[in-house]
Amino acid sequence: MRFIELRSDTATEPTQAMRDAMYKAKVGDDVYGDDPTMRELEEYAPKLVGKEAALFVPSGTFGNQLSLFTHCKRGSEVILGNDCHIVVHEVGAASVIAGVQLRTLRTNGGEMDPDEVKKTIRSEEDIHYPETNLICMENAYSDGKVLSLKNMGEIYHAAKEYNIPVHLDGARVFNAASYLGVDVREITKYCDSVMFCLSKGLCAPVGSMLAGSRGFIKKARKCRKLMGGGLRQAGFLAAAGLVALKDMVGRLGEDHENALLLGEELAKIPGIKVNMEDIQINMVFFDMSETGYDSNKLVDEFYKNGIKINPEEGGKMRFVTNYWVKRQDISYIVDTLKKILFENIT
Amino acid sequence: MRFIELRSDTATEPTQAMRDAMYKAKVGDDVYGDDPTMRELEEYAPKLVGKEAALFVPSGTFGNQLSLFTHCKRGSEVILGNDCHIVVHEVGAASVIAGVQLRTLRTNGGEMDPDEVKKTIRSEEDIHYPETNLICMENAYSDGKVLSLKNMGEIYHAAKEYNIPVHLDGARVFNAASYLGVDVREITKYCDSVMFCLSKGLCAPVGSMLAGSRGFIKKARKCRKLMGGGLRQAGFLAAAGLVALKDMVGRLGEDHENALLLGEELAKIPGIKVNMEDIQINMVFFDMSETGYDSNKLVDEFYKNGIKINPEEGGKMRFVTNYWVKRQDISYIVDTLKKILFENIT
Amino acid sequence: MRFIELRSDTATEPTQAMRDAMYKAKVGDDVYGDDPTMRELEEYAPKLVGKEAALFVPSGTFGNQLSLFTHCKRGSEVILGNDCHIVVHEVGAASVIAGVQLRTLRTNGGEMDPDEVKKTIRSEEDIHYPETNLICMENAYSDGKVLSLKNMGEIYHAAKEYNIPVHLDGARVFNAASYLGVDVREITKYCDSVMFCLSKGLCAPVGSMLAGSRGFIKKARKCRKLMGGGLRQAGFLAAAGLVALKDMVGRLGEDHENALLLGEELAKIPGIKVNMEDIQINMVFFDMSETGYDSNKLVDEFYKNGIKINPEEGGKMRFVTNYWVKRQDISYIVDTLKKILFENIT
Amino acid sequence: MRFIELRSDTATEPTQAMRDAMYKAKVGDDVYGDDPTMRELEEYAPKLVGKEAALFVPSGTFGNQLSLFTHCKRGSEVILGNDCHIVVHEVGAASVIAGVQLRTLRTNGGEMDPDEVKKTIRSEEDIHYPETNLICMENAYSDGKVLSLKNMGEIYHAAKEYNIPVHLDGARVFNAASYLGVDVREITKYCDSVMFCLSKGLCAPVGSMLAGSRGFIKKARKCRKLMGGGLRQAGFLAAAGLVALKDMVGRLGEDHENALLLGEELAKIPGIKVNMEDIQINMVFFDMSETGYDSNKLVDEFYKNGIKINPEEGGKMRFVTNYWVKRQDISYIVDTLKKILFENIT
Repeated sequence: MRFIELRSDTATEPTQAMRDAMYKAKVGDDVYGDDPTMRELEEYAPKLVGKEAALFVPSGTFGNQLSLFTHCKRGSEVILGNDCHIVVHEVGAASVIAGVQLRTLRTNGGEMDPDEVKKTIRSEEDIHYPETNLICMENAYSDGKVLSLKNMGEIYHAAKEYNIPVHLDGARVFNAASYLGVDVREITKYCDSVMFCLSKGLCAPVGSMLAGSRGFIKKARKCRKLMGGGLRQAGFLAAAGLVALKDMVGRLGEDHENALLLGEELAKIPGIKVNMEDIQINMVFFDMSETGYDSNKLVDEFYKNGIKINPEEGGKMRFVTNYWVKRQDISYIVDTLKKILFENIT
Repeated sequence: MRFIELRSDTATEPTQAMRDAMYKAKVGDDVYGDDPTMRELEEYAPKLVGKEAALFVPSGTFGNQLSLFTHCKRGSEVILGNDCHIVVHEVGAASVIAGVQLRTLRTNGGEMDPDEVKKTIRSEEDIHYPETNLICMENAYSDGKVLSLKNMGEIYHAAKEYNIPVHLDGARVFNAASYLGVDVREITKYCDSVMFCLSKGLCAPVGSMLAGSRGFIKKARKCRKLMGGGLRQAGFLAAAGLVALKDMVGRLGEDHENALLLGEELAKIPGIKVNMEDIQINMVFFDMSETGYDSNKLVDEFYKNGIKINPEEGGKMRFVTNYWVKRQDISYIVDTLKKILFENIT
Repeated sequence: MRFIELRSDTATEPTQAMRDAMYKAKVGDDVYGDDPTMRELEEYAPKLVGKEAALFVPSGTFGNQLSLFTHCKRGSEVILGNDCHIVVHEVGAASVIAGVQLRTLRTNGGEMDPDEVKKTIRSEEDIHYPETNLICMENAYSDGKVLSLKNMGEIYHAAKEYNIPVHLDGARVFNAASYLGVDVREITKYCDSVMFCLSKGLCAPVGSMLAGSRGFIKKARKCRKLMGGGLRQAGFLAAAGLVALKDMVGRLGEDHENALLLGEELAKIPGIKVNMEDIQINMVFFDMSETGYDSNKLVDEFYKNGIKINPEEGGKMRFVTNYWVKRQDISYIVDTLKKILFENIT
Repeated sequence: MRFIELRSDTATEPTQAMRDAMYKAKVGDDVYGDDPTMRELEEYAPKLVGKEAALFVPSGTFGNQLSLFTHCKRGSEVILGNDCHIVVHEVGAASVIAGVQLRTLRTNGGEMDPDEVKKTIRSEEDIHYPETNLICMENAYSDGKVLSLKNMGEIYHAAKEYNIPVHLDGARVFNAASYLGVDVREITKYCDSVMFCLSKGLCAPVGSMLAGSRGFIKKARKCRKLMGGGLRQAGFLAAAGLVALKDMVGRLGEDHENALLLGEELAKIPGIKVNMEDIQINMVFFDMSETGYDSNKLVDEFYKNGIKINPEEGGKMRFVTNYWVKRQDISYIVDTLKKILFENIT
């Protein structure tokens, strides 16, 4: 049975082109620097985001934590949004691996206030203060919102004023670029290092990239080994990653259009509230509490109808479009939901 | 030259009674448990705050960090106010020693919103989440405000609902009790562990206490050794600490009255703004920006007149009353300020 | 040009069967537990080593460090050999991730003295002592030697006497089993957790397994997420891993025979000293200092002749046989060395 | 009842001169740098050991761990003796606070082999290696042995060859200097930082000093605050510390002579073995197993006779002479032991 996968774009299977590329991949021992396909990926990827060098890592969390570990002295402070992925979804790793103190600011759809960022920056001259070693942004934000270039620029320049590096959690940075209608480098120019995923919307099976200056990546390579991320014949994963970066980046707009369509159709269902302005990339958040239908039951009912979804989190349902969700699937999803809700009501 | 000390109550010299007690103190090797004066203090102190046991520590920061280290598993989360002492003034130690992730909430004069606390609590069942291991309150708060018993009770019960321990940074908990007009145990009943200072307003030269259950203190004693806080003939410090707890707790109200008087008098000076409602303990915060007088210059001018103050921090001046600031000193302080500002204006 | 790879068995390319298995692999999002091939591997692998459960990890270092992190409380002690992989080749990770103190003992070919182990075990009752939380063995040892079952049993029982878990770094545990002529479970019964590599002699491209009790692996799965090892469509790597475990374990004896042959032939060359007793698995160590030939130059000369080797380390050359080094290659290797040394001499 | 204290020189009470000095001490808030007595101590102490600057710390363990934390990057390596105080008696703190990997070498009476030290030094160029950031010596060693200047010089020069700093745990460095008959600077010239105790044989109640270059001590002062070692009116402890350094250093030879006398007399008792060559400072180790007398029982019997001792550790009894053990006490101690053993035998 073919399932329509709406839980997350992390669940995307690789494309046939990826399988083919993996099958034919030339590989070697990447700890020795001998894997030709990995070398190709590590040369191709940084150019795409306007950085000097890049490094393959097994996951987005690995890439973000590696970046913190490489940028920061233990006991220093990192300023970032209080609901970003590093704070909320990375198991507290920043206090274990990098050993840093997270200073979190409220955000408006992921955007921190540049003035508040400036006020929060601390220098180690005061004997009571840790030193701010890093500022992190996330674009697109975990809630599917895209940070404006203006906000990113302001944060970045605030950081530079104090000579503090900026890391971008760009797990879905290509989605953000697509939404903003700019080359991704217009975003990544406002950071010193960026992590972006080859998996998620780009469909590669495993892995993310960490990009930055040559010196930073050299240091990160050593730290990656310490963290257990020195892989051997990783060229297989690189092969799929190259397809992801070359063939899949350009089509993310389709997922966004499908999300908009899905949002519009869902909004028509009585009892369902969709904030259309929040649909910027491939995520549709909606509130179905007025329908009185239990979201865990909905998970089961959808599953029976060939659709995988997550239950609500924090009072919101989230449907995520991706490569494998085709335009014609949208009406099936909406009709299925109507059928379930309608059957329930009667 | 005798100086009037307004920078902080940390700068209070010990009383003559403390010097006498130290001189005559019976001491022994406290690592062996052989110091009779320390034993006396460690029996007296917990009763005062309604706990089973207590431990002497070299400083308030040491006591707070020891508490975090003893309560928490590394990588777990601690919920606390975003401008409390542990976050702002302890050099990022929580990320080094306990190795925990601080989850900070906005406060209203130090009071966290119990509902927000509940929403922020996390269980380790979700593979993306660290586990909440501790909730911290601070009373009196760093800004001189006193948390209400109602708020403390709500936070405490929220914590208990999820079986999470509560630590109280009670550096100035006796000031808080004095302001609230209650026995300090009415405050400390809303926590599982409490750190309170023998120095500061109580005038002991060195040291704080960490109190809690017998099991917690036993574990903390071992952790204290790891952190380098196993002292030898510490009975000298205990002797002064006993005087602090027996003779000085009851007189803190005088400092509060002096602070109120000082606030009232300062408020009469043109260009100076004092929010009288914020004067709850021994701290007077005021804004003198309208006078146009440079606060660093004021530090120098006051010093020449025998008064020690700090320059403004975050746009606010802070004067702290204490045992050594007598009622008659208040008018001298205010007159000196008028003289300096007046001379400056003309 | 086809190279003969003697630097390490980490550099082994996957077999055609592995490529085929990867091409056809059914995959899903393994963070959701949805990857059928990974599930198959994680069911197959623990049975092989007589444990209840197992977990895929990106590398051997990742698996060892994850085991330390999962077994140990921060600040506790781990007893292990002073020249084992965890101490020497894992970048000091144990002091960063697990945050433990390594207590190293001298070994005899990797074997610790059980009496010395017992004497080194510490309980946290003494206020000066950290608690011993783990004892690690490594078999085969980093220097290619195989620990006897007798020694492993003695260490294991010493540990059990004090109720301390035992971790086995079994990166090449199947080589050890082959040398000892026993089922690998005869080795792994002397440990509570074991890490073994799918790569190295077994030729899988990426990954290792950590096996242990169900409770241990559940906890490790969470810790793996924290360390950034939660992969998505990891079934590709699992597919190759299954081939490794099913088809490649049984043929490791060939590599050992080739190593013995290589050792015997090298020993015949004037100026080269091989300690034949040290050739137990697929590693041949030899001393060529008497030939006066520079080992870095030898690396270059061998490369020109289609053979990859490493320069000497600690005064020793190491040639590692593996699946891709065929019996007929041995004479080519030896002849090439003779030619180079001979030309050099003349 | 007056007790003769032989358990440790840590148990020494302060002298009357110290009590007097403490009583009259001028004090201030040392976190503000306002304590005149502490300033005097921090100026006097470094000159004594030939360093630029020094810092008061609450304990020897605090000073050693602060030194590790200040010198080392987390995850780096520290080379030191496998039975030194930092490894054996500091609760594993190095893995918690500094977060470093201890690389321990066997010692001969505390002396490491300089060649082995050199071989153990590692550079971070190899991707598998942590970097060696520090080498530690301890003089006098925990077992009461004194390192020779020759050995210290060789280790120091080995370290300098690789540009690695050297820390000296000099808890009893003045005892070592007395034994060697040299100015203590002849010892401390072979280190970049040194911790020495004001307590122990010098009789101050609380505290140790960490001395080094001005830059190192500046950095350490900040790290001390993080570790909770920023004390307020610490001048009381400094006052006693000044007496310790000025009046007590010169008399340590008496304790050593008393230890020798005690050793000689003990050696005359049947069944007691004293290795006289091992008595270098104020510690007498002896083996009384041949007497068949239980050491825990001996503790009790001695206590009844007004003498405090510890039970055997690792098969050895240790008696420690100190300021409060007078020459005439030696015969009382020996007679008491004879009486107990004799009564036991009969």
